[in-house]
Amino acid sequence: MTAIIMPAISTHPPYGTHAAVTSPPAGVDLAVTVDTLVRGVHFPQDTPPADIGYKALAVNLSDLAAMGAIPDWAAISLTHPKADDAWISAFNDGIDQLANRYHLRFPVADMGIGPLAITLQIHGQVPHGQALRRDSARPHDLIFVTGTIGDAGLALARRFSAEKYRHIPEKHCGFIEQRLARPSPRVHEGIALRGIATAAIDISDGLAADLSHITDATGLGATLEVERLPLSPALRQLPDRTQAWRLALSSGDDYELCFTVPPEHCKTLRQAARHFSCPVTRIGRMEKRPGLRILDKNGKTFSRAGGYRHFVEKIPSEASPRTDEACGK
Amino acid sequence: MTAIIMPAISTHPPYGTHAAVTSPPAGVDLAVTVDTLVRGVHFPQDTPPADIGYKALAVNLSDLAAMGAIPDWAAISLTHPKADDAWISAFNDGIDQLANRYHLRFPVADMGIGPLAITLQIHGQVPHGQALRRDSARPHDLIFVTGTIGDAGLALARRFSAEKYRHIPEKHCGFIEQRLARPSPRVHEGIALRGIATAAIDISDGLAADLSHITDATGLGATLEVERLPLSPALRQLPDRTQAWRLALSSGDDYELCFTVPPEHCKTLRQAARHFSCPVTRIGRMEKRPGLRILDKNGKTFSRAGGYRHFVEKIPSEASPRTDEACGK
Repeated sequence: MTAIIMPAISTHPPYGTHAAVTSPPAGVDLAVTVDTLVRGVHFPQDTPPADIGYKALAVNLSDLAAMGAIPDWAAISLTHPKADDAWISAFNDGIDQLANRYHLRFPVADMGIGPLAITLQIHGQVPHGQALRRDSARPHDLIFVTGTIGDAGLALARRFSAEKYRHIPEKHCGFIEQRLARPSPRVHEGIALRGIATAAIDISDGLAADLSHITDATGLGATLEVERLPLSPALRQLPDRTQAWRLALSSGDDYELCFTVPPEHCKTLRQAARHFSCPVTRIGRMEKRPGLRILDKNGKTFSRAGGYRHFVEKIPSEASPRTDEACGK
Repeated sequence: MTAIIMPAISTHPPYGTHAAVTSPPAGVDLAVTVDTLVRGVHFPQDTPPADIGYKALAVNLSDLAAMGAIPDWAAISLTHPKADDAWISAFNDGIDQLANRYHLRFPVADMGIGPLAITLQIHGQVPHGQALRRDSARPHDLIFVTGTIGDAGLALARRFSAEKYRHIPEKHCGFIEQRLARPSPRVHEGIALRGIATAAIDISDGLAADLSHITDATGLGATLEVERLPLSPALRQLPDRTQAWRLALSSGDDYELCFTVPPEHCKTLRQAARHFSCPVTRIGRMEKRPGLRILDKNGKTFSRAGGYRHFVEKIPSEASPRTDEACGK
């Protein structure tokens, strides 16, 4: 951990110390991420403040996880229309629940009046030269994904048309809502993947789009097999498996890790994965031929919905029920 | 300078790489600042994008200057209602004009749709343990300020009531508008003050308010002499000198440095100041007795306007003429 020299105490809460000095230890690289979440764009108008805080931190921790870095400290800048004490207290509670898990500190922070938006930057540490990258996958590497994917997408789809998904049992609705509101950044998994994975990325924009960042960065291609995609019991409730696969491929917001592993490292991965908090599933393979190919069990191209359009599809324009009340009844 | 490991090239422009790894050199402390600027709160609705970019960077560089740090790299997160290419290009031009002066790099950046807001975090380097602080001023230290103060406040006052200030010559109006739109962060001055100043802060909220951060952090007090306040020729045009002093004490947005120097370092300061790009003026003295005292030439308490109310007084609710057209005619 780096030593925070100034100020002596954390500014979280209260906000307001713009500047600090830290002393990074020798031999480590500093991994940094930055991301802004805006109300009505990245989360619905009626999202509870604790969920906003939790998710804002989770989203940034997920980026850090994809580099295999140990979270160290964060800078937060918050604008709120009226600096409502109760709101900020609940927001801080949401952040703290996740921050405490990683002993994350907040040496610099800024708060101002403005439309509700949260910018977080997180700093992590990784031994020199060992950060996971996007551009170092190799042909014949196997492609894996942590956890299950498509859950947050299903939660959002259900907000648009609750009636259409009313057959989903209540317990599954709770699960997918939690996946959307409070994703689990795969921090420990990312750290364990150092030296095993050749490349890694987190799934924020949809598996297909994020995997394309790896193929674009390497000039390689990839083939995915839809039947291998890890679907949660909630997603398996959908009568149309094709829709489940489309959600898994394109809806994003899952904050799982997608990573590539050379065949000779697969045994090491299997051993490491015993300590993971989530399953790991092989879903495809890197190839020399550029482009992303998605195949069904017959080896035919699987037709999927268009890419994930972050600002267009994500948030219903009108606040819709977000609780489990509309579910399973 | 730290080496930016990933990505290989700067993301400025375009925006969109959330994560990077840097390798800090041994023996340096990392100075960090974070600040968000929101349209209609921190700058008027009609501010040209190049000025917004320039000022967003200047404001953060000024915080770094007050620590005596060498600017190294920055993280930017921008939200814009429609990601207008021409706007972003002009905004980048404004940033670049200042960033290039300090060889500042932008390894991580994020851009999204939302109300116009800019969050910048800047990282600087300072030899271990040498960062300027707020809490280490001592009794009998002399208080200095760089440049002139109150200029940005006069520019804002003129926007509220152009008629009232029409006697100010055009060249002075251009000067104060420039001071408001494109402040000069005192980066080189801050670096030169290491080992000379005991404490430093930049003047963003008004001299009196910012000096109070030093007295609060030390438990000491201070006495200022209004007659010593450095006023620009523009401010000296005001028929009422009392108004000029009030602007200098309370209006803020000048981004000059206020710092304390022990009497035995004054000769060294004088030598260092020969290389400054601005004058340095002694304006008062630190004292054991807590509180801030502001005296006129007769030693009587100077009555000043209330503290600087950032979100209330700063921006006219209706866009008002910002050019020199209303000036000196």
